[in-house]
Amino acid sequence: MHRLLILSKHADAYRHLIDDARLPDLEMAADEASCDIVLGEPSLVAPAINRLAGVRWVQSTWAGVEPLLDPSLRRDYVLTNARGIFGAPMSEYVFAYMLAHERRLFEKFAAQRERRWDPAPPGTLRGKTIGLLGVGSIGGALARTAKLFGMRVKGYTRESETSPDVDEYFHGGGREAFARDLDYLVSVMPNTPATRRLVDATLLAALPPHAVFINPGRGSTVDEAALADALQAKRIAGAVLDVFDREPLPPEHRFWTLPNVLITSHTAALTVPDDLAAVFVDNYRRLAAGAALRYVVSFSDGY
Amino acid sequence: MHRLLILSKHADAYRHLIDDARLPDLEMAADEASCDIVLGEPSLVAPAINRLAGVRWVQSTWAGVEPLLDPSLRRDYVLTNARGIFGAPMSEYVFAYMLAHERRLFEKFAAQRERRWDPAPPGTLRGKTIGLLGVGSIGGALARTAKLFGMRVKGYTRESETSPDVDEYFHGGGREAFARDLDYLVSVMPNTPATRRLVDATLLAALPPHAVFINPGRGSTVDEAALADALQAKRIAGAVLDVFDREPLPPEHRFWTLPNVLITSHTAALTVPDDLAAVFVDNYRRLAAGAALRYVVSFSDGY
Repeated sequence: MHRLLILSKHADAYRHLIDDARLPDLEMAADEASCDIVLGEPSLVAPAINRLAGVRWVQSTWAGVEPLLDPSLRRDYVLTNARGIFGAPMSEYVFAYMLAHERRLFEKFAAQRERRWDPAPPGTLRGKTIGLLGVGSIGGALARTAKLFGMRVKGYTRESETSPDVDEYFHGGGREAFARDLDYLVSVMPNTPATRRLVDATLLAALPPHAVFINPGRGSTVDEAALADALQAKRIAGAVLDVFDREPLPPEHRFWTLPNVLITSHTAALTVPDDLAAVFVDNYRRLAAGAALRYVVSFSDGY
Repeated sequence: MHRLLILSKHADAYRHLIDDARLPDLEMAADEASCDIVLGEPSLVAPAINRLAGVRWVQSTWAGVEPLLDPSLRRDYVLTNARGIFGAPMSEYVFAYMLAHERRLFEKFAAQRERRWDPAPPGTLRGKTIGLLGVGSIGGALARTAKLFGMRVKGYTRESETSPDVDEYFHGGGREAFARDLDYLVSVMPNTPATRRLVDATLLAALPPHAVFINPGRGSTVDEAALADALQAKRIAGAVLDVFDREPLPPEHRFWTLPNVLITSHTAALTVPDDLAAVFVDNYRRLAAGAALRYVVSFSDGY
């Protein structure tokens, strides 16, 4: 018999969803000591993990597992993260803001407040170029949506070239060639040592002045001071920022008031319990069958 | 030799694009009297048409040809309209505003102005239902895009059922069953006697209170007083309106100031000269080959 401990803000929802799946040989753990499986937010699991003597598997409800990578915490269990469920919401986020930019949503609304008929023509995504920093399952979903809207897609990855919807791939030293002609730069990279501050002054300087940077990925991938400088000097046209080095973004941060910045408070792709429960159920069935789990995190790579 | 008269705000662009196509046996008409082909905006062609003795074919740069349907004007020529080129911009328009609604773009921006971290979760298009009033080439493009975003698609048409991306079709008296469970109602119907005021108090009353109405089609299809009443009483959640009975929308109209209305000043799908020139070039080649032209308008149906 496996015993599951749920450490989540949405524990009730997960309990119902997992009960409904009627998984064999699984019951809810009566206490921390008896559990061998944990499902939860890394921020809630991390403070408990060293006490959970019997834990063999932790399913994170988040994509990012930073709290569990702290060197003081044990690593003698299988950690799986939330993956494969963020492509759809990330597409909605990125295309909401790219379309809002092209269609001049805020300008049209400003005209409306003045009761002013504003026939200024909108732009279009068709023929524009999107550059994806990171092309995993999220980047692949963005690339597919971009193709539907008639965009050209460039991808920058460490080495993988998995999406058929990316027109051109770049790696390593190709960062500036990647950035040179982008209309939109979108970072969907995980937080790892290799991605830290990849969006820096050099990359930003390589972008054309009409480019818009969108970051629904990780704050750690951006040199925030360099980005704020580029935006303030209008060396790029704008930024849509969901994630930051410090969250909540401190009230005194200049991002709040730069006129070409939109802030979305880490809501780009929230975990939907239904989706994550399906990941858990699938992984539990694999565990019960003695098969390899999906979305296993490498403690050394961090994703 | 055919002689082309261009009556358009973008005459220079069309002249260059058509010159570049090097069409056989075609030259620009030296004057009105000598032309047999006209390319232009219906609003500019209509005042001239009765003087153009030799005209055999008029290619409209617009989808709507109302000015040319005036009973005082001759109808002894082939009229073709702009079609097949608006699916992409209409998709950008409709999805820009649906995504803005789900992602709470204006609310997030209001929070930003107060330097307020706003973690309120967004909605999603996934699983929502869009109802298309009219499923021609534009409606088909909207249905295809809706499917990519995981939406359910209902279509209301006179009788045709052409799009494979529509889950359920409705006709005639099925208007209320069509409207009953929509999250978004989008009108992309042409202006014809049959579509006049189809969006009336009855249809609006059939919508659920969370529904949003989007009209990038024709103002004539809407009973504006009934719509304003429904919006004011919050019997529906909101409206995004591009077209109106009178344009520009008069400054005293209550649409301007209703808090749940967004106005976009007839910019949803502007004709791009490159796209329309390609329609003209294709049709000219058909004419030269003695083949039937595409997108012929029925003067009696109005489209």
